[in-house]
Amino acid sequence: MEMMSNDLLIKNARVWPSADAEVIEDASILIKDGELIRIGKFRARANTLIDVDGCLVMPGFVQTYLHLCQTIFRGIAEDMPLLPWLKNYIWPMEASHDPASIRASAILSCAELIRSGTTAFMSMETVRHTNAVFEAVQETGLIGVICHCLMDETGGYKPLTVELEESLAECDVLLDHWGDHERLQLGVAPRFALSCSGDNMRETCDYAREKGLLLHTHASEQIPEVELVKERTGLLNIEYLHSVGLTGPDVGLAHCVHTEPHEREILVETDTRILHCPSANLKLASGIAPIPEYMKAGLTVSIGADGAPCNNRFDMFMEMREAGLIQKPRLRAQALPVADIVRMATLEGARTLRQEKEMGTLEKGKRANLIFLSPDRFHVISSKDPATNVVYSHEASDVMLTMVDGEILYEDGRLTTIDEAALRKTVVEQRQKLEERAF
Amino acid sequence: MEMMSNDLLIKNARVWPSADAEVIEDASILIKDGELIRIGKFRARANTLIDVDGCLVMPGFVQTYLHLCQTIFRGIAEDMPLLPWLKNYIWPMEASHDPASIRASAILSCAELIRSGTTAFMSMETVRHTNAVFEAVQETGLIGVICHCLMDETGGYKPLTVELEESLAECDVLLDHWGDHERLQLGVAPRFALSCSGDNMRETCDYAREKGLLLHTHASEQIPEVELVKERTGLLNIEYLHSVGLTGPDVGLAHCVHTEPHEREILVETDTRILHCPSANLKLASGIAPIPEYMKAGLTVSIGADGAPCNNRFDMFMEMREAGLIQKPRLRAQALPVADIVRMATLEGARTLRQEKEMGTLEKGKRANLIFLSPDRFHVISSKDPATNVVYSHEASDVMLTMVDGEILYEDGRLTTIDEAALRKTVVEQRQKLEERAF
Repeated sequence: MEMMSNDLLIKNARVWPSADAEVIEDASILIKDGELIRIGKFRARANTLIDVDGCLVMPGFVQTYLHLCQTIFRGIAEDMPLLPWLKNYIWPMEASHDPASIRASAILSCAELIRSGTTAFMSMETVRHTNAVFEAVQETGLIGVICHCLMDETGGYKPLTVELEESLAECDVLLDHWGDHERLQLGVAPRFALSCSGDNMRETCDYAREKGLLLHTHASEQIPEVELVKERTGLLNIEYLHSVGLTGPDVGLAHCVHTEPHEREILVETDTRILHCPSANLKLASGIAPIPEYMKAGLTVSIGADGAPCNNRFDMFMEMREAGLIQKPRLRAQALPVADIVRMATLEGARTLRQEKEMGTLEKGKRANLIFLSPDRFHVISSKDPATNVVYSHEASDVMLTMVDGEILYEDGRLTTIDEAALRKTVVEQRQKLEERAF
Repeated sequence: MEMMSNDLLIKNARVWPSADAEVIEDASILIKDGELIRIGKFRARANTLIDVDGCLVMPGFVQTYLHLCQTIFRGIAEDMPLLPWLKNYIWPMEASHDPASIRASAILSCAELIRSGTTAFMSMETVRHTNAVFEAVQETGLIGVICHCLMDETGGYKPLTVELEESLAECDVLLDHWGDHERLQLGVAPRFALSCSGDNMRETCDYAREKGLLLHTHASEQIPEVELVKERTGLLNIEYLHSVGLTGPDVGLAHCVHTEPHEREILVETDTRILHCPSANLKLASGIAPIPEYMKAGLTVSIGADGAPCNNRFDMFMEMREAGLIQKPRLRAQALPVADIVRMATLEGARTLRQEKEMGTLEKGKRANLIFLSPDRFHVISSKDPATNVVYSHEASDVMLTMVDGEILYEDGRLTTIDEAALRKTVVEQRQKLEERAF
């Protein structure tokens, strides 16, 4: 094997290339220029060598639904139903963001994501300051589709109402700045049927498809929302979203907890992407999304933590465990096998981001986005199956290393791209200022 | 303040004395001979000083339902319904235990418990080798009520069938050895209505009450179990348990997922203790126990992880989070407030162990059973309420120190009473031998 100046060899690994593959014991991974060159049992030399001493090496997680801008609100409004939670706390806090507070929130989010093994994400931000989110995420090294949020009807809550033209003009500016970025992409997110006009949604869809951007919205999270849409439009929520263009393989619909058979047919026919948020659906009392039914129907389902104020974590291990556990009493103990859950958390996430050829599994030619999990924790040492361990036993702190494009973002308990002490200080300061502005 | 040779001062703490108290900022705790002497804002000198640098200091968790002997089976039987899971995997593994394998399982359990902040527990072991569990737990320093299991009818599964006289004779021996232990107590556990004869349950109750021991059984975990009891006895399960003596403040009933109004009346009238196992009830597809209803009726409810093969963790943080989340879609977002959950995980656990005067809160005169939680984790630094953080944000690895009776069992990522490297090696060896014997 030829030696390259920028190559990296991982050795002594239990490599688990994907949810559908067997573990390769005592294996190696060769990486060059951030790309996976070779995976398996082989000998090679490289400029940089990492002996992982028996760690499980697997693809990094892909979370397809987060609100980075809300992380700094964590704990502000607990144990409340969705609508008062949104209107009395989340929207006023979002409206009070400035670039400094949204930046602190985004970096805090990335710190938690990297430490817990998420290497790529899609997020819905707010109606302003999306550029500050891009700048923050860029510094951390994560891969992200960052969606600018559109709301032209907010039920009388003026501070978050932005005209469509102004929103799309901001998207133009964002595209100018970030359109060619290697790790970051712009997406567009009309927030949900009740905070956007039909014209807004239709024109945003046209804009996104003209520019090749992903679309993202909330859908059918709670029954009062579905009923209000029915009352206003005469249509079921998914029927309505379909009528304005918000279905298709380029659309990520968060939640989809309450859907009727005809709506499910539309989702299948249009190959729309379901973004499952198990913890948040419990925390806001929304319900349990029929995920095994969606998967059986052939839908692409991936997982996201939603926002910190309704979770309260950004931890894929918690989401995978919850995704598995909550289906069982409703269906049976065999519902949603662990391999399906890991696939949702990795490859199906990548597919939702339209990057399944680049990430989501460890395969030659894909980007080197991976994590190391400790084999030494008391909660896994008597258990052998990697999928069982990853879904039901491992926790965030078992992540020993997080790598994106061959670059180490976290190792030995330390983030490499974020000044942790400065971040803690900034978050406390910005949270206080934000609360003073909001309330 | 007089200096003592065995006193200890904790300073610079955010002390949270109980679920029902406010946090005391910049506080200290003085401990002497393992007892809490003073808590609050004061200055003192002591032989040993621990500056906790802003950690949250709170009571250690009390888990009231575990199977230490099953921990080494973790991952053996996944995503299966209860009865085949029990009969094809758990019982054959239990029957194949020898003192060495059960010892490895018990120490592994204690390692996970200590690291994740549990300082006291009640466990149901198997029909043999309970002395080896006592010996193992004693070495770790945890406080425990270890229940010897009785099964005289096991549906044709002979290897775990033990005559009542033999079981009670073993209890006599255990009492002789451990009756005066400071941290360990014997309890007795007729396994459940379907694996014990009525005489067995009645005589075990008499025995326990004569000796002053706690009683413990499974109750109404799944509908097939409840139906079988009805078929055999003509009674509802709790009615039947009541008829044989298995109700009262000295009885811990695990699960109680499926109970009818009349059964709930019996539980309330007899002040029987409910042991809630939210994760295990989901994992085995049992259902969601009506915990807010039980609490409203005045019942004492505490929390346990059940066994590692149906969880797969022994982590009170996971159980608290799950306990809170699963009630919300069924009731409403305000169901089961966080302070109630923390109280269940601490004081109500202590009450169930009949040790509420000695532990469960940080108060003068109680035993110094406490944990330190890091204030620096990304998932808590923007959130202020301790109950919210403990239930929905903190994870096991946020425990920085675990103390029982003033003795440090875990600090800076290391266990002080368990040789971790030796444990890992032993667990792997014993698991393999056990599987060879069982299958």
